[in-house]
Amino acid sequence: MAGSTFGERLKVTTFGESHGEAVGVIIDGITPGLELDEAYVQIQMDRRKPGQSSVTTPRREYDKIRILSGLFEGRTTGTPMCIMLNNTDMRPSAYDDIKSMYRPGHADLTYEKKYGLRDYRGSGRASGRETAARVAAGAVARKLLERRGVSVLAYTTEVGGIRCETFEPDAIERNLVRACDPVAARSMIERIEQLSANGDSCGGIVECRISGVAAGIGEPVFDKLDAELAKAMLSIGAIKGIEFGAGFQAAAMLGSEHNDQMDRTGFLTNNAGGIIGGISTGADIVFRVVVKPTSSISVLQQTVDMYGKEREIVTEGRHDPCICPRIVPVIEAMACLVIEDHYKRQAALLDE
Amino acid sequence: MAGSTFGERLKVTTFGESHGEAVGVIIDGITPGLELDEAYVQIQMDRRKPGQSSVTTPRREYDKIRILSGLFEGRTTGTPMCIMLNNTDMRPSAYDDIKSMYRPGHADLTYEKKYGLRDYRGSGRASGRETAARVAAGAVARKLLERRGVSVLAYTTEVGGIRCETFEPDAIERNLVRACDPVAARSMIERIEQLSANGDSCGGIVECRISGVAAGIGEPVFDKLDAELAKAMLSIGAIKGIEFGAGFQAAAMLGSEHNDQMDRTGFLTNNAGGIIGGISTGADIVFRVVVKPTSSISVLQQTVDMYGKEREIVTEGRHDPCICPRIVPVIEAMACLVIEDHYKRQAALLDE
Amino acid sequence: MAGSTFGERLKVTTFGESHGEAVGVIIDGITPGLELDEAYVQIQMDRRKPGQSSVTTPRREYDKIRILSGLFEGRTTGTPMCIMLNNTDMRPSAYDDIKSMYRPGHADLTYEKKYGLRDYRGSGRASGRETAARVAAGAVARKLLERRGVSVLAYTTEVGGIRCETFEPDAIERNLVRACDPVAARSMIERIEQLSANGDSCGGIVECRISGVAAGIGEPVFDKLDAELAKAMLSIGAIKGIEFGAGFQAAAMLGSEHNDQMDRTGFLTNNAGGIIGGISTGADIVFRVVVKPTSSISVLQQTVDMYGKEREIVTEGRHDPCICPRIVPVIEAMACLVIEDHYKRQAALLDE
Amino acid sequence: MAGSTFGERLKVTTFGESHGEAVGVIIDGITPGLELDEAYVQIQMDRRKPGQSSVTTPRREYDKIRILSGLFEGRTTGTPMCIMLNNTDMRPSAYDDIKSMYRPGHADLTYEKKYGLRDYRGSGRASGRETAARVAAGAVARKLLERRGVSVLAYTTEVGGIRCETFEPDAIERNLVRACDPVAARSMIERIEQLSANGDSCGGIVECRISGVAAGIGEPVFDKLDAELAKAMLSIGAIKGIEFGAGFQAAAMLGSEHNDQMDRTGFLTNNAGGIIGGISTGADIVFRVVVKPTSSISVLQQTVDMYGKEREIVTEGRHDPCICPRIVPVIEAMACLVIEDHYKRQAALLDE
Repeated sequence: MAGSTFGERLKVTTFGESHGEAVGVIIDGITPGLELDEAYVQIQMDRRKPGQSSVTTPRREYDKIRILSGLFEGRTTGTPMCIMLNNTDMRPSAYDDIKSMYRPGHADLTYEKKYGLRDYRGSGRASGRETAARVAAGAVARKLLERRGVSVLAYTTEVGGIRCETFEPDAIERNLVRACDPVAARSMIERIEQLSANGDSCGGIVECRISGVAAGIGEPVFDKLDAELAKAMLSIGAIKGIEFGAGFQAAAMLGSEHNDQMDRTGFLTNNAGGIIGGISTGADIVFRVVVKPTSSISVLQQTVDMYGKEREIVTEGRHDPCICPRIVPVIEAMACLVIEDHYKRQAALLDE
Repeated sequence: MAGSTFGERLKVTTFGESHGEAVGVIIDGITPGLELDEAYVQIQMDRRKPGQSSVTTPRREYDKIRILSGLFEGRTTGTPMCIMLNNTDMRPSAYDDIKSMYRPGHADLTYEKKYGLRDYRGSGRASGRETAARVAAGAVARKLLERRGVSVLAYTTEVGGIRCETFEPDAIERNLVRACDPVAARSMIERIEQLSANGDSCGGIVECRISGVAAGIGEPVFDKLDAELAKAMLSIGAIKGIEFGAGFQAAAMLGSEHNDQMDRTGFLTNNAGGIIGGISTGADIVFRVVVKPTSSISVLQQTVDMYGKEREIVTEGRHDPCICPRIVPVIEAMACLVIEDHYKRQAALLDE
Repeated sequence: MAGSTFGERLKVTTFGESHGEAVGVIIDGITPGLELDEAYVQIQMDRRKPGQSSVTTPRREYDKIRILSGLFEGRTTGTPMCIMLNNTDMRPSAYDDIKSMYRPGHADLTYEKKYGLRDYRGSGRASGRETAARVAAGAVARKLLERRGVSVLAYTTEVGGIRCETFEPDAIERNLVRACDPVAARSMIERIEQLSANGDSCGGIVECRISGVAAGIGEPVFDKLDAELAKAMLSIGAIKGIEFGAGFQAAAMLGSEHNDQMDRTGFLTNNAGGIIGGISTGADIVFRVVVKPTSSISVLQQTVDMYGKEREIVTEGRHDPCICPRIVPVIEAMACLVIEDHYKRQAALLDE
Repeated sequence: MAGSTFGERLKVTTFGESHGEAVGVIIDGITPGLELDEAYVQIQMDRRKPGQSSVTTPRREYDKIRILSGLFEGRTTGTPMCIMLNNTDMRPSAYDDIKSMYRPGHADLTYEKKYGLRDYRGSGRASGRETAARVAAGAVARKLLERRGVSVLAYTTEVGGIRCETFEPDAIERNLVRACDPVAARSMIERIEQLSANGDSCGGIVECRISGVAAGIGEPVFDKLDAELAKAMLSIGAIKGIEFGAGFQAAAMLGSEHNDQMDRTGFLTNNAGGIIGGISTGADIVFRVVVKPTSSISVLQQTVDMYGKEREIVTEGRHDPCICPRIVPVIEAMACLVIEDHYKRQAALLDE
């Protein structure tokens, strides 16, 4: 792949820059005959869209998707589905002042080194806007997973040093940060609003729980299910780490503590996070990712420009002080794509 | 891929079970004209081989590799190189007692659920022995990277709760756990020997530092350099998490702290771990992985067998009480494969 | 791939049905910094578009392309380029009468067997309209090849039993059938118009000549340059065979006749068609493809419907009596994609 | 791929030079639980091996395969199967005289241009010996296809200008050229022996018939079943063209003649060769390939050496005067790999 395609049997290819004409995705390999419409996809888009609340960017993209192919009389045809979103709230002139500068934390320098030139309008291809296309594709995968009884749920567990103490699934979509603890959520929101007022940003942790995956899904060796989930998550720009089950705590555990023993009802613990040897155990798949603080801040920073000159920079613009709430649906989307793809690979292997 | 192939332009495919006749690898896409011999590869094999010391398994595999193709008159031909290792110290009968039982922490259950049957001799394909093939392939990639001035160095930073306090690169290959702190190393070895005497095991953390990578290597979006390194690392059975740069600490950092500011000499910090937007910044690429405690322990554990009956199990056999020292060359090998592959992809993109 | 993606390093993914909202393509892996605009691509689109002349379908699609991404200030950015065409002259109601019938020569039966349902409007995804997206992608590849001094030229050599006797490159774009012999072209046009009046169609042969390819391009074994060109050509619906150089005549030749001997000026013959062992020799790459007669004819034919009932069918509608003239730019486009992709693979291999 | 890997879900990767230590293949994605043994694979190897008769090369390779992995207690495990053949009758010194010369018809020049160096011993990687690995892999695919009721049969239909007039399947394995007409076979053998005495060689045509493939197998657009079969066949060094069904004769046919009409019993003709729109129709898949005359001849030829000097060359050695009889099992093997792979892709798509 040249970097914009993901998946083996359910294959998605995205395109589009943040301030170009449109972003979109082609999804190939969709099981035919599935009932689907734009409204179903739009539900997920609306969870990711900017301008949802006081803790997200005020940039307003209506993110209204259109399905251009692969659907006929309300059913998937099995041929590629193109889903497109026009970019509507573009203000490229806002980037004129900084077009020659490398914004700290942004991919400005790296894109220029890689390509020799770059689209400086709002991060171009490296923008979080690219993830809108992933959410659209993930919605289609989610629909396919529903048939299998698989559900994917992500939620914020830590923001700016504040951690969730309880897990209340019903609370997640009812608070602005999509935290699983409504009390912690209130502190998180307060913290974010305070940082936002200072022009600063903060990071956090999001956990994802995938339920209903049968035992035996995942490939051995290089395409382990956890390896592919790790790739999927780290492919989201703001994510800098991932851990499964007991995760980094395993470093201080004994084998006799970490091993998940079994009785006839199943596993007694889930330190493995639902995956052993790269293949699902039948227990919930559980992983956590760390989300870095948003790079765009209006605090004064030191940098250089493309001519090697030292400069001071204040990244104005409309940005999320904490990306956790909007990254939750992106994480779910990528998880849906990985799981559905591996179900399809398993079908190809067994093929009975 | 069906799971046993890795890489786009430098492509490796492994085969072999731990107690079958042989394990091996085909490496395709090797730059032609490179001077290489078996001895160069063997150096890396010897770092991974069992039976090195008191803290590794006493299982003795000489791990003598043979290069069967792709080499002519001391130089690579550009055609596929097959490297093979015969399995010499097989004792499959050792597994007779447990062949119907699912060992806790092992892939016994998951392989059986996936394939409907499994090679129960020493974990079969899920065995750590498969990584010998990766180390062989990684040695070839390392040779290619040397021409570019890229070096890859991994080392243990934590074992059984004991952490390194200093970073002394020269110490790494001089202590049995490959730790970067020779004082901590002594405590680690003591801890491992004690656990080994009790039939238990422990986990740890390994850090990897890749130096000399030019800015601009890595693909955007799905094939980000960190995403591919994450996949590569999580594809190693014992690894349950990865973090880049500041990693999980980023959750509690502000944007103004996490952003790596620049002056004309380069980045002032390296919280990004050398990768932004999936592309190398030119700074060292730094990541840490968590290594779970070895699953094979001789402590009594509760499990079930393939007939659903509850059983007690003691995994006898010859196992590593802590896999950190032997996983270090595997991590380096996978890192070498990823970096060389992405250099080749960049050459294809620019192609001037 | 799930079937709609082509290429390794220059990778194209198409979408769209003939009577849906749009068709389009994402091209990934384009060398950055290339000057390109919509007008350059449009030139090739206009060579393929319907309604060009008396020997093509009167269906009118303006085939005006739009580039939605991957271009910035007149240069390619190296990120995916999406090129889209809206479908403008759709008359899906024209297909109401035949929606339950399997048209002879069409993919109606096969799509229904594969997917369990099908978009019956104008062949859906199996329509020749899908090739418009290929021509757009091929134009980008052609631009990349121009830098290398590679040119790709296809032309009709046989139509309805009439064969070209001369090769006059300047004549090709000056006659309606894109034949390389202007005298034969006149007979071909006459033949096509006569068949068209009868509601019948005819086949033909198109030759393609690729000049300027350096020796050494192509992969060994499975991805031989001729193998990939063969796949590319047979992936065009109407093409049923391909031969390189001496082609099928080689069956009756001796080794001493077929072998291309050399002197210091190069090859004395080109029976190999410019490729030996899957790798370019430096001579022109020459192949011929056979184009089947257009399946849509208004002659009465016997068929069955989806209920297994025998039916008679007359495929009304607006169709090409001979697809040769419009398939020429499609063949060139696919050839451009293959050659540019293999140049990029070679760059990845050597990478110096 | 870097050229030595084939297939999506049933994936084969070959290695090995003709005069190196061994050739072999890794087959990944094999359905687990399949009964298989070395003897089953050996049957196909013996059909391809040299030294079978007066019309094949006297080079003697016993071609005894060994299965090194992926098999346990007589059944496939679903993990990669490595099959290896040692090279036993190597006489590399036979090539000393010609190591600096480019043999006409051989890949000497092209490999040197591509790689900058080459293994000159018996064509190295470009040798027909590489196809032994394909035959081994094809045998495994054939076993998988047997479960589906699919059979693959190839046979010589033309050699040195002599054509089969009858189709007698039982005759094929009973004559030395594997022709479907035992009378023509006698003339063919005579012709080959005569050419062989003169040090010359001849080409031919092989037809392949695949029976029992259900309607609906194959991918749309780029991975059409005929496109993939074409790639598979052209990836065999000696093959220079392919045609399906009516093939090149379609150039002179009318649509009303070429279209395969239907009644309730099925298709009335099979001009499409069993594939429409890239997807199987349920009729036999029929294609023909042209096999070029063996390049190695002992007739005096003109060439140049690697220093650009004009030379005369007589390729001594042990070669097949006509490769048709030994290419028949290679063609079958590649066809088996393509068909089984596409069945697996279809299973992934539908996945019910």
